[in-house]
Amino acid sequence: MTRETYSLLENYMLSCMDDSAHDKEHVYRVLYHALEIAKTQEDVDYDVLIASCLLHDVGRKEQFENPALCHAAVGSEKAFAFLTAHGFAAEYAGRVRHCIQTHRYRENNPPVSLEAKILFDADKLDVSGAMGIARTLIYKGIISEPLYSLLPDGTVSDGETDAAPSFFQEYKYKLEHIYDRFYTEKAASLAEERRQAAVDFYKSLYREAASSYQAGQDTLAGLLTDS
Amino acid sequence: MTRETYSLLENYMLSCMDDSAHDKEHVYRVLYHALEIAKTQEDVDYDVLIASCLLHDVGRKEQFENPALCHAAVGSEKAFAFLTAHGFAAEYAGRVRHCIQTHRYRENNPPVSLEAKILFDADKLDVSGAMGIARTLIYKGIISEPLYSLLPDGTVSDGETDAAPSFFQEYKYKLEHIYDRFYTEKAASLAEERRQAAVDFYKSLYREAASSYQAGQDTLAGLLTDS
Repeated sequence: MTRETYSLLENYMLSCMDDSAHDKEHVYRVLYHALEIAKTQEDVDYDVLIASCLLHDVGRKEQFENPALCHAAVGSEKAFAFLTAHGFAAEYAGRVRHCIQTHRYRENNPPVSLEAKILFDADKLDVSGAMGIARTLIYKGIISEPLYSLLPDGTVSDGETDAAPSFFQEYKYKLEHIYDRFYTEKAASLAEERRQAAVDFYKSLYREAASSYQAGQDTLAGLLTDS
Repeated sequence: MTRETYSLLENYMLSCMDDSAHDKEHVYRVLYHALEIAKTQEDVDYDVLIASCLLHDVGRKEQFENPALCHAAVGSEKAFAFLTAHGFAAEYAGRVRHCIQTHRYRENNPPVSLEAKILFDADKLDVSGAMGIARTLIYKGIISEPLYSLLPDGTVSDGETDAAPSFFQEYKYKLEHIYDRFYTEKAASLAEERRQAAVDFYKSLYREAASSYQAGQDTLAGLLTDS
């Protein structure tokens, strides 16, 4: 890819970025992860891969403003339109569109091309380890969701059986389960190296929160009087 | 304290709570921490302590809407006005006001009463360990600040010398240094138990972010051509 093309795509990406959990630094990390993964693969089309990484989240703003929209669907069409409007061949733009369309895991729409699988893995890597924890917490702040829910007895829920959204719920439903969902061995092994940091953090946070409530609620009950 | 008084104060607190980093669960954790610390002290006035904990952040909304305001100053006056309007003695309301006024560390306005020192420590405990990390990240999401800044050479800054606000900057400027600022031995030892979880998380996050950029930027430079 030429520097000029890279700058064109980078500037379009920058003009589309919005929230701080899916900001431009996330896009650069995904690009850098993808390049690491690509080194372990043969016949990677780097023009498709680099463009797909740079543009993979350009539909985020639309999804944030209207949660009924899927940022992968919206973003893939935006990227296709942008590329063809700037003189790139429809065949090339179509291959980028496929990567972006399938980077969000949906049973009925998995990544098929090598570049699509690499983008998928690179994006999921950024949900692993301490980075996945940090980005999830930042996003909970943006959408005003709490760290945890309380069980009916007033103690802190670990998230395992929660219906209400919270950080612990998302950890148990999503973050804990991403480690066996990679297409490439390289991404799986990079994620595995990061896994323990996420597990340790969740355990520490749960222990800190739960212990406060357990001790405090008993003490408080003993201090309050009827009249 | 009677259950009726507790409910009165709790409901007023709930009506004032807003953002998810200083939400009602933070208030309950501070109350529970304070009760743990109080067990190690003599002659604690629990009526003052419980009211001060429940009401310590009732000025948060005002500070959030106008950062020139100090939530400790605003909140202490709101609490005083609420208590006297509900028939509590001015002497009692004044002791609660002192606790709330001084719970935010400022050189020229330190906590003086025992209950004020306990509230101060209980509130700072909630900035220690994994909980301090989680609450800081949630708050960064709310105020749209990034995880880290980049150094002039394009690598990830560890926050140590940053002027621009970010999670790493706040970790280095604030979170790392709270552990020797407690008034009570109990709070200092509870914070010390939590400390390693925060250190480990920061180190993991920095390592994950920095390694992506280092490897990725070199690879990218080798892939881009002039024409």
